[in-house]
Amino acid sequence: MKAALYRGNRTIGVGTSRPIPPAKGEVRLDVAYCGICGTDLHIFHGHMDQRVSVPLPIGHEVSATVAEVGAGVSNVSVGDRVAVRPLKFGAPSNFDKGNPHVGKNLKFIGIDLPGGMQRFWTVPAYTLHRLPDALSLEHGALIEPAAVACHDVRLGEVQAGEICVVIGGGPIGLLIALVAKEKGSQVVLSEVNDSRLKLAASLGLEAVNPLKENLVEAVRSVSDGAMADCVFEVSGSVPGVEVMTELPNVRGRIVMVAIHPEPRPVNLFKFFWSELKLIGARLYEERDFDEAIELAASGQLHLDRLITRINAIDEVQQTFETIVANPDGIKYLIDCAS
Amino acid sequence: MKAALYRGNRTIGVGTSRPIPPAKGEVRLDVAYCGICGTDLHIFHGHMDQRVSVPLPIGHEVSATVAEVGAGVSNVSVGDRVAVRPLKFGAPSNFDKGNPHVGKNLKFIGIDLPGGMQRFWTVPAYTLHRLPDALSLEHGALIEPAAVACHDVRLGEVQAGEICVVIGGGPIGLLIALVAKEKGSQVVLSEVNDSRLKLAASLGLEAVNPLKENLVEAVRSVSDGAMADCVFEVSGSVPGVEVMTELPNVRGRIVMVAIHPEPRPVNLFKFFWSELKLIGARLYEERDFDEAIELAASGQLHLDRLITRINAIDEVQQTFETIVANPDGIKYLIDCAS
Repeated sequence: MKAALYRGNRTIGVGTSRPIPPAKGEVRLDVAYCGICGTDLHIFHGHMDQRVSVPLPIGHEVSATVAEVGAGVSNVSVGDRVAVRPLKFGAPSNFDKGNPHVGKNLKFIGIDLPGGMQRFWTVPAYTLHRLPDALSLEHGALIEPAAVACHDVRLGEVQAGEICVVIGGGPIGLLIALVAKEKGSQVVLSEVNDSRLKLAASLGLEAVNPLKENLVEAVRSVSDGAMADCVFEVSGSVPGVEVMTELPNVRGRIVMVAIHPEPRPVNLFKFFWSELKLIGARLYEERDFDEAIELAASGQLHLDRLITRINAIDEVQQTFETIVANPDGIKYLIDCAS
Repeated sequence: MKAALYRGNRTIGVGTSRPIPPAKGEVRLDVAYCGICGTDLHIFHGHMDQRVSVPLPIGHEVSATVAEVGAGVSNVSVGDRVAVRPLKFGAPSNFDKGNPHVGKNLKFIGIDLPGGMQRFWTVPAYTLHRLPDALSLEHGALIEPAAVACHDVRLGEVQAGEICVVIGGGPIGLLIALVAKEKGSQVVLSEVNDSRLKLAASLGLEAVNPLKENLVEAVRSVSDGAMADCVFEVSGSVPGVEVMTELPNVRGRIVMVAIHPEPRPVNLFKFFWSELKLIGARLYEERDFDEAIELAASGQLHLDRLITRINAIDEVQQTFETIVANPDGIKYLIDCAS
């Protein structure tokens, strides 16, 4: 069977996936589908070459079937369909304050350790979440990004009846918007790509193109002057950071989801003046996966609409190139049984 | 009797204070002492000329005795010694979400309305907090800045046993440090002025000069690698903003106390990576005054040590010039009965 291997220099080759017998506490999976994430694109572009060792089987948005369990594993059985929370917890540090998911010694599986864009994959049993019958393996591959969204919305403390603004309408932004909507909030999604805007509108979101419309005024109008209770900065852009402080009301929250590789000019006066909060959010915890699975199984996340295409593993290089060339798409999956 | 009047152009003149009979719900005060705050210095330098109308009696850090009460006033009686919470609440707005102290229509008394650096002052009765017998009128004039500190520490959710870092050791920074220490936290205070550092050390704070010592390493050493649970940025400086994100541990909080008039480069990646929080804090609420009075009356805030000098109202211009020329001082009071 095959593995998608990052070889450096914008090259994802196809190699052989070899089954690794599960040690104590581990599970060997037959991977079904693996989604391609923004982080995988960063790896592809070489931005993370200092962190990854080549050739690396990339990928961390995985659905799979349990093929073999190691000694002492009781949470899953052979044949179970699962999603993978790709975090290998490290030794606790007093710096972590009991938060292993962002702990000092955390290893991210698919960046720091071999990932799941391959047929055979062996991981710690504690990373696995069983999928209910109602959830297909295709949709199961979207549980990881949906768990990111659940985490972000939870840390943003979004309540029913609130106004939320999501800046950036890629896969994570759309999922955050859908999860926040599911919490009973009204969501304005800001995105510059017309095709993504169209999709957002068809999913019941207020979709605004900030290049064509004044986002601040749009939020003022939607909220009857109350402005936003919670803003999610998912764009990673300088204009996103500029506008994020113009949108919240008194004690409004801004959730920092995006990765900003460089310091950005931030209007700190607004934080002082209206007692705003900026809340950094990274990855997910166990309960975010549980919630993502529940929401996905209920159909509320419209995962069908977010899958742009499913390609064979042999097409992986071309799939990455398509994503880079065409920002209209949302989520591409690789069929790891192919 | 006299009033200190800002006349523009770095001039604080001395004029006449005329008693204004209290309307319904108002109280006329005989002001005892009025402290000089950083905001008064901003007014002095002309930075707030667009907001203040001259001549303006400035000042908002006031202790006083109740001289006359208007109709319907029941919370204070003639002869009561009081501190003043100088906020005139405006009409509620749906933007405020029930937070009148930072509401859209708030007027700050001493900036937007005549202040208390004068003998006779008439204010809404709801702004008054009675001082206990244990508290002198001199110390009563420091309740307002102490309430700022109580508000900042409360919003920072400081717990016993935590490590706090205060960046900036002026009056507010020192008071924040003392309030946080009173909560049972261990406090490192970063300040560049040696005289202030000496005072901080004599008050039992770990005092660090970041120009002479590496602040990040000092916090690492004090915390045995755990780093800071809560950081207060009180310096208003670019280096303060640069270092504030280097100090917290996982899910650490940064309280933005300082006024940064311009956008500052902020390391947003750190917010993402360690799930940090930035919490804007402005002014105070009723309970912060209550707490400040309680702490001050208990002697825990060492207010004696924070009062640099008490000057007569006739010396007000010269006092402002001294403060500008000499950053060694902490708190200057004006004796408004003089």
